[in-house]
Amino acid sequence: MLRLATPDYLRFGQSDSFNANFGGGEANVAVSLANYGKDVKFVTRLPENDITEAAIRELRGFGVDTSAILRGGDRMGTYFLETGAVSRPSKVIYDRAYSAITEVTPDMFDWDKIFENAEWFHWTGITPAISQGAVDTCRIAINVANAKGITVSTDLNYRKNLWKYGKTAGEVMPELVSGCDVILGNEEDAAMTLGIKPDKMDLKSGEISGEDYLSVSQEIMKRFPKCKLVVTTLRGSVSANHNSWTGVLYDGKKLYEARTYQITHIVDRVGGGDSFMGGLIYGLLTYKNDLQKVLDFAVAASCLKHTIYGDYNRVSVAEVEKLMSGDASGRVVR
Amino acid sequence: MLRLATPDYLRFGQSDSFNANFGGGEANVAVSLANYGKDVKFVTRLPENDITEAAIRELRGFGVDTSAILRGGDRMGTYFLETGAVSRPSKVIYDRAYSAITEVTPDMFDWDKIFENAEWFHWTGITPAISQGAVDTCRIAINVANAKGITVSTDLNYRKNLWKYGKTAGEVMPELVSGCDVILGNEEDAAMTLGIKPDKMDLKSGEISGEDYLSVSQEIMKRFPKCKLVVTTLRGSVSANHNSWTGVLYDGKKLYEARTYQITHIVDRVGGGDSFMGGLIYGLLTYKNDLQKVLDFAVAASCLKHTIYGDYNRVSVAEVEKLMSGDASGRVVR
Amino acid sequence: MLRLATPDYLRFGQSDSFNANFGGGEANVAVSLANYGKDVKFVTRLPENDITEAAIRELRGFGVDTSAILRGGDRMGTYFLETGAVSRPSKVIYDRAYSAITEVTPDMFDWDKIFENAEWFHWTGITPAISQGAVDTCRIAINVANAKGITVSTDLNYRKNLWKYGKTAGEVMPELVSGCDVILGNEEDAAMTLGIKPDKMDLKSGEISGEDYLSVSQEIMKRFPKCKLVVTTLRGSVSANHNSWTGVLYDGKKLYEARTYQITHIVDRVGGGDSFMGGLIYGLLTYKNDLQKVLDFAVAASCLKHTIYGDYNRVSVAEVEKLMSGDASGRVVR
Amino acid sequence: MLRLATPDYLRFGQSDSFNANFGGGEANVAVSLANYGKDVKFVTRLPENDITEAAIRELRGFGVDTSAILRGGDRMGTYFLETGAVSRPSKVIYDRAYSAITEVTPDMFDWDKIFENAEWFHWTGITPAISQGAVDTCRIAINVANAKGITVSTDLNYRKNLWKYGKTAGEVMPELVSGCDVILGNEEDAAMTLGIKPDKMDLKSGEISGEDYLSVSQEIMKRFPKCKLVVTTLRGSVSANHNSWTGVLYDGKKLYEARTYQITHIVDRVGGGDSFMGGLIYGLLTYKNDLQKVLDFAVAASCLKHTIYGDYNRVSVAEVEKLMSGDASGRVVR
Amino acid sequence: MLRLATPDYLRFGQSDSFNANFGGGEANVAVSLANYGKDVKFVTRLPENDITEAAIRELRGFGVDTSAILRGGDRMGTYFLETGAVSRPSKVIYDRAYSAITEVTPDMFDWDKIFENAEWFHWTGITPAISQGAVDTCRIAINVANAKGITVSTDLNYRKNLWKYGKTAGEVMPELVSGCDVILGNEEDAAMTLGIKPDKMDLKSGEISGEDYLSVSQEIMKRFPKCKLVVTTLRGSVSANHNSWTGVLYDGKKLYEARTYQITHIVDRVGGGDSFMGGLIYGLLTYKNDLQKVLDFAVAASCLKHTIYGDYNRVSVAEVEKLMSGDASGRVVR
Amino acid sequence: MLRLATPDYLRFGQSDSFNANFGGGEANVAVSLANYGKDVKFVTRLPENDITEAAIRELRGFGVDTSAILRGGDRMGTYFLETGAVSRPSKVIYDRAYSAITEVTPDMFDWDKIFENAEWFHWTGITPAISQGAVDTCRIAINVANAKGITVSTDLNYRKNLWKYGKTAGEVMPELVSGCDVILGNEEDAAMTLGIKPDKMDLKSGEISGEDYLSVSQEIMKRFPKCKLVVTTLRGSVSANHNSWTGVLYDGKKLYEARTYQITHIVDRVGGGDSFMGGLIYGLLTYKNDLQKVLDFAVAASCLKHTIYGDYNRVSVAEVEKLMSGDASGRVVR
Repeated sequence: MLRLATPDYLRFGQSDSFNANFGGGEANVAVSLANYGKDVKFVTRLPENDITEAAIRELRGFGVDTSAILRGGDRMGTYFLETGAVSRPSKVIYDRAYSAITEVTPDMFDWDKIFENAEWFHWTGITPAISQGAVDTCRIAINVANAKGITVSTDLNYRKNLWKYGKTAGEVMPELVSGCDVILGNEEDAAMTLGIKPDKMDLKSGEISGEDYLSVSQEIMKRFPKCKLVVTTLRGSVSANHNSWTGVLYDGKKLYEARTYQITHIVDRVGGGDSFMGGLIYGLLTYKNDLQKVLDFAVAASCLKHTIYGDYNRVSVAEVEKLMSGDASGRVVR
Repeated sequence: MLRLATPDYLRFGQSDSFNANFGGGEANVAVSLANYGKDVKFVTRLPENDITEAAIRELRGFGVDTSAILRGGDRMGTYFLETGAVSRPSKVIYDRAYSAITEVTPDMFDWDKIFENAEWFHWTGITPAISQGAVDTCRIAINVANAKGITVSTDLNYRKNLWKYGKTAGEVMPELVSGCDVILGNEEDAAMTLGIKPDKMDLKSGEISGEDYLSVSQEIMKRFPKCKLVVTTLRGSVSANHNSWTGVLYDGKKLYEARTYQITHIVDRVGGGDSFMGGLIYGLLTYKNDLQKVLDFAVAASCLKHTIYGDYNRVSVAEVEKLMSGDASGRVVR
Repeated sequence: MLRLATPDYLRFGQSDSFNANFGGGEANVAVSLANYGKDVKFVTRLPENDITEAAIRELRGFGVDTSAILRGGDRMGTYFLETGAVSRPSKVIYDRAYSAITEVTPDMFDWDKIFENAEWFHWTGITPAISQGAVDTCRIAINVANAKGITVSTDLNYRKNLWKYGKTAGEVMPELVSGCDVILGNEEDAAMTLGIKPDKMDLKSGEISGEDYLSVSQEIMKRFPKCKLVVTTLRGSVSANHNSWTGVLYDGKKLYEARTYQITHIVDRVGGGDSFMGGLIYGLLTYKNDLQKVLDFAVAASCLKHTIYGDYNRVSVAEVEKLMSGDASGRVVR
Repeated sequence: MLRLATPDYLRFGQSDSFNANFGGGEANVAVSLANYGKDVKFVTRLPENDITEAAIRELRGFGVDTSAILRGGDRMGTYFLETGAVSRPSKVIYDRAYSAITEVTPDMFDWDKIFENAEWFHWTGITPAISQGAVDTCRIAINVANAKGITVSTDLNYRKNLWKYGKTAGEVMPELVSGCDVILGNEEDAAMTLGIKPDKMDLKSGEISGEDYLSVSQEIMKRFPKCKLVVTTLRGSVSANHNSWTGVLYDGKKLYEARTYQITHIVDRVGGGDSFMGGLIYGLLTYKNDLQKVLDFAVAASCLKHTIYGDYNRVSVAEVEKLMSGDASGRVVR
Repeated sequence: MLRLATPDYLRFGQSDSFNANFGGGEANVAVSLANYGKDVKFVTRLPENDITEAAIRELRGFGVDTSAILRGGDRMGTYFLETGAVSRPSKVIYDRAYSAITEVTPDMFDWDKIFENAEWFHWTGITPAISQGAVDTCRIAINVANAKGITVSTDLNYRKNLWKYGKTAGEVMPELVSGCDVILGNEEDAAMTLGIKPDKMDLKSGEISGEDYLSVSQEIMKRFPKCKLVVTTLRGSVSANHNSWTGVLYDGKKLYEARTYQITHIVDRVGGGDSFMGGLIYGLLTYKNDLQKVLDFAVAASCLKHTIYGDYNRVSVAEVEKLMSGDASGRVVR
Repeated sequence: MLRLATPDYLRFGQSDSFNANFGGGEANVAVSLANYGKDVKFVTRLPENDITEAAIRELRGFGVDTSAILRGGDRMGTYFLETGAVSRPSKVIYDRAYSAITEVTPDMFDWDKIFENAEWFHWTGITPAISQGAVDTCRIAINVANAKGITVSTDLNYRKNLWKYGKTAGEVMPELVSGCDVILGNEEDAAMTLGIKPDKMDLKSGEISGEDYLSVSQEIMKRFPKCKLVVTTLRGSVSANHNSWTGVLYDGKKLYEARTYQITHIVDRVGGGDSFMGGLIYGLLTYKNDLQKVLDFAVAASCLKHTIYGDYNRVSVAEVEKLMSGDASGRVVR
């Protein structure tokens, strides 16, 4: 997916150039994992042109296996980004209608081959939001993964402007989510895709409390028995430049909480949730049952993402672990 | 007026390029109103060259009627801007001596024609600061507006480095202000142009209190009986990056106060007062007697201006109203 | 020394260009003093090429006497800088091995001539960190200065990644420091180069207390009897964007403390210590025995440095004195 | 239409930013005419978002009447441009599938109102290339114009990668062209849209001869009896940086030829044909029957376009006339 | 003097930034000479602000003595530059009215002191073009130089848009020129300032012939008996990107001619004449009576200037001599 | 290897930023081959830091196998590039002393493993120029390749400023070259490394004749009996912007000549020879015994390189073949 962003804090129409970055929910998770040294394969469909090749070249550079990416279709999904400041929010203009991925059909992919030697399959709620073909493809992938005993995770990732092909998230998502072992979302995602809401919820207050999400997590577990972990990202939006950030993780027994970071001078918050997911998967693969460490890694990794331009989280395990260990001072390393 | 600013936070002499933007007190108000969908005409005098045409093309793009702009004279007023940070203030080097507008004389403009169908005339204290011809032209415009029953507003806008042609603001402004229905200023403006000071005043403390300005507003009303509204912008300067911002409005009966915004990551504060004036005029034309809403609109509009690069306030009514309604969270709109 | 920094907050490998600035500990002090109107000569060794000439041209432009700079050797010391944000620290990759200055030998410089009419000699702990030849050269320069009654100052400036030629700072520095009248450092410098630590010390907490450094200062004075002033910079690192900053000065009798500045939106913190030293030397030359004023000038000068891009502190005496006087409001100067 | 071009001569994937310009065949002609002082209205359909508003603001700035532009649909037509050099050709990646204009239907436009007071209607072969709805809309517009006695011109503008909705240019264009008074094209356009080829034709040789096109012009006139003028642009491509450029005009009696310009250092050749059309319409409206002058103006105007970045031809009548008069020396004007 | 140029080949109004460079006729000559290792002092008057300090810092960096530059007045002379391409000429918008230098009066300068130890004084025809005070100052400087036996040179440098204070070049220049030993100009300069024209002259043809200028040179010598050398630059303008360039020198006996350079890809032609003058003065001081070498140096030096951005000619003696020796191949030096 | 180039045509010291690109003789060949779809492995040694990782990420993105790259040593070889124009040559400042690759020793590499499944080994004369360890390593690699029957090619690539460790090219190269099957060079390379010169040779004239090189090729074949092909690149330097370019290939029987390209607007000529080598190897692997086609491919590929910024030749087989087929018109592809 191509992101075209006005530089600095310029408004649309104020700049005669766009910064160009590649990204997108699943690609962002893939890059995170590759940066942590994990073998990772990214599956999508892109049109046959030089911009696709540039996107693939960048992924391959990170070490992501791009061999399963299909070429075809008319266009690459694009979005335009205007970066906000203080009380002026960032603005996204989606231009992903009719992108190559919206036209996928289940027969295009050989999941048996794609999943060879795989131990994890991750998908996001953005895919089923774009077309019926994408839903069908996603469903089959989940089924194959389930059959092969591959761990399946999802980021619910509700985007109200994407669900345009005639179905609502509420109609589509529950079935897909039922095949998942790990479910990530924030308060709005759970409400809009699964219809599960916290008892109290005040987005504008900027105040966040992990405890409020215990009931949501429990409800999700109850509704989706395959699910072993429910993870929630908690973003408090003080302003476009200053967010608080943390997450909670529920394993059916305990609600794990993590340090709340005050991210006071955000460089780029897009991809924050994806970097959380990348950190979470890495953590689960690495720290296994030490779920506190898993959560701490995911929160610290995604905290760092907010300081990095572009969708991808360009950080190493060592950098995340340094922050996890408590050093958020930002002192020069030399 | 041409503004030439060093990029980022570079000092003069540290950059080999300048960002170029057009602006200036009255132009900024005109653009605000055009952005809110109001018909607006901008009157000035500019030299005959390609840079003038570029400035006019931008104004016309915003929808400002530029048909009354005169071509003539040697130069366009220019200023150089170095953007400060933290405790280093922004610096302005004015280069507006001998600009085309300083050479205007009353006979150059046909105010009867210019004011056809007009309901509002706005001028600022910068115009009479630059030359006797500008004072004379301004006086006649005010007189014609008064005769036609057009509402007249002024922004006192005191700039100590401009009054160089032999008269002081105190000698010139009161007569002009006496023809105004709406008077805008801050604490320094009122003191320097009208000689009216608040009882207590501590600019450096960064603390602001609307109540302190009640006496100033009352005194202005008393001195200028045509005046129906006195409006004061209140800026608290915590640092070059962080200002607090609000305003008060007095209608002879009540001092209206508005929310104080903490603008913690300023993008560009030049034009803040002009964007307030633009919001105020829009508010008065739109919300009429709901003066609280008028003031809230003006304060929210100018709060947003601080997040936008350049002199012009590039915001829509919807954006201002969203902030007015209390959503200052800066959450991504997608 | 050439600094190559990724623009904005981009990570290494994310940018296809580097901003290029010249700097380095001693050069930074020299430029500060030249900007304050002092006659200052900079002594170093640089390779014979056009980049050297560019560096020298910039220094000469500031008014620094560059006539004693030697040409020779293979390369100019270089470092790569990635600017951090929030909890992601800035990263420095040194590439100064084998630079022209590492190859100096005492016979290359005629200190008698260099010190003609000089009243002050300043060196930093970076020089003896790079090679034995640099140590020997430094020692001789200090001896000659001592013999001529020239005031000698040092900035201990410990950099752990530089001491690679076989000796430790602890082995080399004490002898050199013993020839100094003024010693500047921070808590880490004193510990690593002189082995003198404060009783309690918690770098990560971000809390700083001048009083804690009294014992260190007293211990330094005791160990180095020539020393008349011990000065300590105190940096609290809230995040990569927000530091607190102050310093203390001890004259054997009293520990002078200064205002602590909250530098909430750092533009560039590299060269902060050098700008302190530049301010300190200027202060001592100008305010003489008014040590509170000396310290206040040094702290204010280096506070301003954090708002200026590049290694050099591009501020005037008037600007520093304005901040010293208490005006940190950052209000536009026009 | 949004054009996103890599800066300088960078290849796709070599740049992390795109220069953004608005343009497109008909818009380019509109801007040319507005720059020459003609009243001109631009009709299209664009999606409702801030990028559309930016495009419209620019057009309005040039003085183009944008009141007839419809808002609706999903996306703005986009193309990506990589600028070639020497023997490496420029590359265009079209991303205009499903743009708002492709979805137009005849009922969306009230041509009677649009054509009020109009004396000229211009359309290009790009419009019927994109969808059946666009063909139908175009046909009706031509019919209404014909009925009202408005002069109709077309630029055949064949783009092989656009005709994708099931019809060929050869099937669609002749009917539309039959309603035109003025037909512009180059050798390829005539061949591909009308099936009319010159007797001999060697694109690669770079040699061009106006005479070769006499037979084509005569054949077009014979087939389309309403047509009064056939105009052909003649581009010789020596390299991506160096083109020769001229045109011929046939009025049924005489083949007018113009000077051939050697454009040795092309800045931007996109929009060359459109700028020719803009010059041609201006010439016909201004110089009337002096067809040599009309052609000379069109050729000179479009020669200048090659020196201007972006799709739009930003030149004045005076500048074109200066070149027409024979001064191609490029001497500094000061 | 401040030059503000649109980047690349953008037109005014197409760019939202200007490249900023310092320059101006006499400053350009001064920098050339400093780059060749000559001691040179630059005399002018500039307003007291940070942009002046930046200009002076750059000059001082080159080694130019700036101690005689006066501070005062309102503004620095400025010009805006749009760089042309092919048949579109570069455009200059002068904004130098009322600059500090226009307000000079003879009593401001102490020429006896300024000329201490000087052996050469150079002035250009731009100075007397701007004000009567500048003429008077120039006259006195020439007189003092003559009295001290200092060689005086002038570049006639006719700029038609500058002579606006009531006198023509023809009225003012001859008297000043009569005090000069070396006179430089091109064909237009001689015609407009001295009224001396070549027998045949066709600027637009782009063809240049040194011989044609013999009669002009002889006529100048006859009219100005103090003059020992008449030097003419010969520019053939094939296009804005491609000029031919050479010069002729007449010593009263022989017309020296030099190689004609085809400058096919001009980077920046502004300052071309000044760089010729700088090379000429260097040549006369260095090669003395070897006038062929003097001319060859001046022509080669100014040929190189066309490849360097900005007004200043940033080349070394070695680089000029390499070109003089015949190596114009542009092969990489590594 | 890191290349730091001033942007546009700015001189060193005129720009405050450098464009950063990775490259270097062997890396350039590797990237060419990867772009043509060949499996290629790049062997070198680089220091352990983030800039190395960026370089490797880019190579991996192109599809180059980077698994054999060693991490170690102090620094990455660097060079600074100032791009020339017209008669001002480009300038290279090497800063590759003490780079990680200069410190290699034969024991660091396991050539048996590196050469597994390899059919070709390419090295250049730059490697033995930097240190004795590099010579020794190179010799062993050649020997192992010879033993395994792997084709060995070399680019003689003489750089006079690199041979600084005590040996001359003439002493070192012949032994290494004796193990090669394919030898590439230009006239200077053969003369300086092998002592073989053409009968007549005039570099400055810019005239090139393939025939002149027959004797050189024959002499090389005679001296190095293992050699099956001698290939010579022929560059005529009309100016820094305009080179002519072709090559000849001699197989012991026939001297194959190719079309000479006039590259009139060079974008970047660095890496031209490497791109020739990349094309040659691809050609030999693909077109086998059709040596005319092999040569044509190499010449066309490297002709295109001159239009691409950076060291790497970013072209596809299809693009090279299009040029080979004779289409050098640079017409827009859309």
